[in-house]
Amino acid sequence: MSSTSVTPPLKAVASQASHASVQASLIDERLNQQMPVHISKLTPLTFLERSAVVFADKPAVIYDDQKFTYAELRGRVHRLAGAFRRAGVQPGDRVAYLAPNIPPMLEAHYAVPLAGAILVAINIRLSSAEIAYILEHSEAKVLVIDAELTPVIASVAPDVKSVKKFVIIRDTVKESAIDGADYEEFLQMGEDQFDDYSLPDENDVISVNYTSGTTGRPKGVMYTHRGAYLNALGVAELMGMDCNSHYMWVVPMFHCNGWCYTWGVTAVGATHVCLRKTDPGKMFHVIQRDRVTNFCCAPTVLSTLLNHPSAREFRLDHPLRVCLGGAPPSPALIREAEHVGIDAAHIYGLTETYGPFTVCQWREEWNANPLAERAQIKAQQGVAHILSGTALRVVDGDMRDVPADGQTLGEVVMRGNIVMKGYFKDPAATETAFRGGWFHSGDLAVMHATGYIEIRDRKKDIIISGGENISTQEVEKAICEHPDVMECAVIAVPHEKWGEVPKAYVSLRPGRNTGEREIIEFCRQKLAHFKCPQAVVFGPLPKTSTGKVKKFEIREKEWAGREKRVN
Amino acid sequence: MSSTSVTPPLKAVASQASHASVQASLIDERLNQQMPVHISKLTPLTFLERSAVVFADKPAVIYDDQKFTYAELRGRVHRLAGAFRRAGVQPGDRVAYLAPNIPPMLEAHYAVPLAGAILVAINIRLSSAEIAYILEHSEAKVLVIDAELTPVIASVAPDVKSVKKFVIIRDTVKESAIDGADYEEFLQMGEDQFDDYSLPDENDVISVNYTSGTTGRPKGVMYTHRGAYLNALGVAELMGMDCNSHYMWVVPMFHCNGWCYTWGVTAVGATHVCLRKTDPGKMFHVIQRDRVTNFCCAPTVLSTLLNHPSAREFRLDHPLRVCLGGAPPSPALIREAEHVGIDAAHIYGLTETYGPFTVCQWREEWNANPLAERAQIKAQQGVAHILSGTALRVVDGDMRDVPADGQTLGEVVMRGNIVMKGYFKDPAATETAFRGGWFHSGDLAVMHATGYIEIRDRKKDIIISGGENISTQEVEKAICEHPDVMECAVIAVPHEKWGEVPKAYVSLRPGRNTGEREIIEFCRQKLAHFKCPQAVVFGPLPKTSTGKVKKFEIREKEWAGREKRVN
Repeated sequence: MSSTSVTPPLKAVASQASHASVQASLIDERLNQQMPVHISKLTPLTFLERSAVVFADKPAVIYDDQKFTYAELRGRVHRLAGAFRRAGVQPGDRVAYLAPNIPPMLEAHYAVPLAGAILVAINIRLSSAEIAYILEHSEAKVLVIDAELTPVIASVAPDVKSVKKFVIIRDTVKESAIDGADYEEFLQMGEDQFDDYSLPDENDVISVNYTSGTTGRPKGVMYTHRGAYLNALGVAELMGMDCNSHYMWVVPMFHCNGWCYTWGVTAVGATHVCLRKTDPGKMFHVIQRDRVTNFCCAPTVLSTLLNHPSAREFRLDHPLRVCLGGAPPSPALIREAEHVGIDAAHIYGLTETYGPFTVCQWREEWNANPLAERAQIKAQQGVAHILSGTALRVVDGDMRDVPADGQTLGEVVMRGNIVMKGYFKDPAATETAFRGGWFHSGDLAVMHATGYIEIRDRKKDIIISGGENISTQEVEKAICEHPDVMECAVIAVPHEKWGEVPKAYVSLRPGRNTGEREIIEFCRQKLAHFKCPQAVVFGPLPKTSTGKVKKFEIREKEWAGREKRVN
Repeated sequence: MSSTSVTPPLKAVASQASHASVQASLIDERLNQQMPVHISKLTPLTFLERSAVVFADKPAVIYDDQKFTYAELRGRVHRLAGAFRRAGVQPGDRVAYLAPNIPPMLEAHYAVPLAGAILVAINIRLSSAEIAYILEHSEAKVLVIDAELTPVIASVAPDVKSVKKFVIIRDTVKESAIDGADYEEFLQMGEDQFDDYSLPDENDVISVNYTSGTTGRPKGVMYTHRGAYLNALGVAELMGMDCNSHYMWVVPMFHCNGWCYTWGVTAVGATHVCLRKTDPGKMFHVIQRDRVTNFCCAPTVLSTLLNHPSAREFRLDHPLRVCLGGAPPSPALIREAEHVGIDAAHIYGLTETYGPFTVCQWREEWNANPLAERAQIKAQQGVAHILSGTALRVVDGDMRDVPADGQTLGEVVMRGNIVMKGYFKDPAATETAFRGGWFHSGDLAVMHATGYIEIRDRKKDIIISGGENISTQEVEKAICEHPDVMECAVIAVPHEKWGEVPKAYVSLRPGRNTGEREIIEFCRQKLAHFKCPQAVVFGPLPKTSTGKVKKFEIREKEWAGREKRVN
C-alpha cells in the first residue's frame, strides 16, 4: 500500500544553549542515579548532550541543502526517543532500521538508546528473506525504513510478527510499498526533552550488528554503551579529528554503526556530511562544497573515485584524511591518493570489534622510503589503536604467540573493551569465538619484528597446495602490481594432484588489454611457481554492499558439488 | 649523612619491539584475569605498554642531553616496579616522591602503580613539617627523593616511622643529607619485565594528591585508575596532541599528577620534555631546541616568560599551544601570547578533578572579535571537556541551577569519572564535599547564556560590603587593564560601616610608576564605586609553588586578631 501524505519540512527545534546545559546535566544525573560521585557510566549519549551545549549553533549535520545544528539534532533525537516510547518501545526492546546514510539513520544512533532500546541497523542490500530473518531473530518491535526500500520488504512484512509498527522515511522517494507512520510526523509525537532515561549498566547492549553471513546465517554482534563510547574516542583519535573536521559518510552507518563514527564525530563536535549514494561525481562535489576533511571506505571505493573522469580536474585545496578498511590498499592506490593530496591510513577490524581495532600507525622515518616500500608497509594492518590498547595477538592453535619473524602464520585474536559482548541469542557461537579467553578473528597473519601485524588470508581462504600454505592475498598483491590490473581475487580450486591450486579473477583498468599468459608470467617473476595461478578469468568481480569482493561466491561456482575442507 | 657513591650512567635497557608486543599482551591478560572477554580494565599503564610497541624507538623523554625511547622507558619502569616489590612494597601501599620535573618523577607514574602501589607525589616547596605530615598521613613505605631536597627532610626523617626505605635521585646535586639507596642502583634490582601485576578493580586508587592546604591540614585526594585513564585522554584531546607533539614539563608533576599529562602524553606517543626548573631563558632555549608544541602553566608563569628579555628576540617557527590554569589570563597576556604566535587556551579544574575539568572551548566566529572582547570570553572557564562530559553545574544553596544570565552567582559543582574518589582517610571531609551527590568546588561562578561558566570568586574570597557581593576577581580584572599593572590581588578588609571593603595589592611592570589615587580613579571609570578598592599597596605578591597568589597570606595580615566570617 502506498502513502501520499504531504511530508512537512524538517522542523528545526528551537533550543537555547543555556537551557540545554541544564538539561544535559539533568540527563547526566538521571543516568548516574545510585552511582558514587566519582563514577559516571560511559555511554555515547553524553557526547550529543555535551555537543548540544558547546556547539549548539554549529552544523551537526549537512545533507545536500539541509543543515541541522547540534541543538537541533538533540531536539530531534529527544522527540524521536519520546515517540518510540509512546509507540510501546520499552527498555531492552530492539528497533530496526533500513536506511542509507541520511540524517534519520544518524538520529537513530542516539534516539534508540536514549529510549533505552537497542539499535539494529540492517544492511540495505540484503534480500527480502535475509532482512526478514534479521527482523525475526532480533525480534524488532519497530522498523524504520526509507520509502525507496519498502518494495524489498513488502512481500515479507506481513509475516514478521514481532514488528508492531512501521515508520516510513520519505527522502528522495515519497511512495511507500508498505503501510506505516510518516517519520517526520512520528518524530513530532515526542517532547523536546525526553526525561525517562535510565541505563542500569554501562555494559548493557546499545546495538546489534548482523554479520554479512558469508557462511551460514547472519550472527547478531552485540555492542555495549561502554565499548561504543570508548571506540568512538578511538576512531576520532585515529583521524585526528576535532570540532573543525567535516566527516563525509561513505562507510554505511549499518556497518559496525559506521565504524563508530556515528558517535565519534559527535564526540568532538565535528560535522556529519551525509550522502545518500556514493556516486563519485557527487562525492567530489561534496568534498569541495562542504570542505570534507575525513572519510572512511574500502580501497575499491577510493580506487573507483580516483579513476573517475572527475578526478582529472580535481585538486584538493584542504587536508583530507581517509581511513581504508576491508582490504589493504594497493601500491597504485597509494600513489593515486598521494597524487591528489589525500592522506590515506590503513585500518583493520571486524564487525565483532566495533569496526577499527588496529591502524598501520605511520612513522615519520618511513616518509623517505620509495613508493614500493611505503606501500609494503601500508599494506600491514599494524597495531592496536589507543583505545583497543594492548589486547592484540597472533597465535598458533595452542594460543601461543607466533614468533615475530614476519613469516610464521597464526590467527589474529583480540580482547577487551573494543570486542563485542557476544552473539545475540547464540551462546554456542559466542563460546566458540571466545575460546581461550580471546576473540578469534578467523584472519591469518604474521607478526613483524616491528610489532606490526600483517594479514595474509582469511582462515577459510588459505590455499593448501601439495601441503604448502599459499596466501591468496600475497598472490593478489603480486597480480595487482601489473599496470593493467585494477583489482583481482585469488581462490583455491580443486586439483587432482596438489589438492588445491590458485586461480585468479582479474578486472582490468578501462581500455587495457592483457592475457592470461602474461598475468601468469608476471606472477612467476615475483613468486614461487607453485604460488602462481594456473588459470586467469577476466571480468568484473562480484562485491558486497561494503565493497568487499565476494570470494565465497566465486568459490562456490568452482567448488559446486565438491566439498571444500573446513579449517 | 651524605653519600658519595659513584652514580652509574642511566642504562638504556635494550628492548625489541616485537618482544615488547608479546609482553604487552601478557600484561593485558594478567590485568584482566577473570574479566569477560569484552571488558578490559581502564588503567593508564596500558598506554605505556602500547607506546613501547608502537613507538619503541621514538624518544619518550628528553631531558637536557638525556634521551629515552619508549622501549627504554618501559624497561626502566618495569625494573623499578620490581625493585619496589623487592623492597617490600605490597599492593595498596603508598610510595612517596619528592622531586622536580625530571625523568624519575615521570617513571614513578608508571612504576608505582605497576607494582600495585599508590603514588604520593609531594609538593617540593612545602616545609619540613608539612612534608612530614603528608608522609605520616599517607603512611608512605618508601620515599624517593631528589638529593637537592634532602636537607629539607633531614631533621624530620627519623620521626617518620612509616618510611622503611629512602631512595636518593642524584641529578644536579650528588650529595644527600640523608642515608638511602641510590636511585639508579635501586632500579637495577628489578627485572626487565615485571610480571607480578594485578589490578582487582579499575576504580582502585592509583595516586593520592595532597591539596595545598590553604586552610587547615592538607587533604589527600584519591585518583582511580579509571579516572586517570579517562582524564589522560581528555587532556591529550584538549591540546590536540598526537605522536608528533613535544610536551614541555612546566606544571609540576606533583600537581594533580601533572594535570594527568604524565599519562596523556604517553597515551598518544608524544615526547615528554623534562625541565628541572622553569627558568625563562632555559624555557626559550628548550622550546626551540626540542621543538616544543605544548605546555601548561599558570598565567603568571607565561607572563613572566613573555616579559623576559629573551622574549624580545624570540620568534616561534612552529605551532605552540599552551593551556593556562589556576587563574584567568589577562587581556595583556593574551595580546602578548598572540604576538609571539602562542595559541593559549584557558582551562579550569581543581586537585579534586584530576586537574582540567573545563575548557574555554574556542569558537571560530570569535576570532573576528576585538582583543578586549576575545579576552573577556577567554577569561571564562567554559564548558566540561569531552571526557568530563555533561556533569558540570552552577547551583544555589539548595542545589538548584542558577539562571543562565551571566549575573547570578552560584557554586560550581561536578561529578563523574573526572572527580576524585574521596579524601584519603577522611570520610567526614569527603561527605561534606560530596553533599547532594555532587562535588562542591568552593568556586562561585555565573552561567552565561552560551552555557559557559565564569568564575567570579572563591567562596571564601568574596567580599560582602554593605550587604552587596563584590567579586574580587572582577575588581582584579579591572585593575589589571591598567597599562602599568603586571598583576594584582584584591581582598576584603574589615570596615566599621560596611563590614568589609576591597583592598588591592598591586605589582607593577618593570620601570613603571603609578600611585594609589590613579589606580582607584582608573577603577572608578569601570566599576561601581562601592566595588573599587579603598586602599592600594604596591609590591611583589606572595605566590604558591604553582604560581597562584597566596591571598590567604595577605588576608591573614589584614585580619590579624579579627575573625573573617566563614561562608
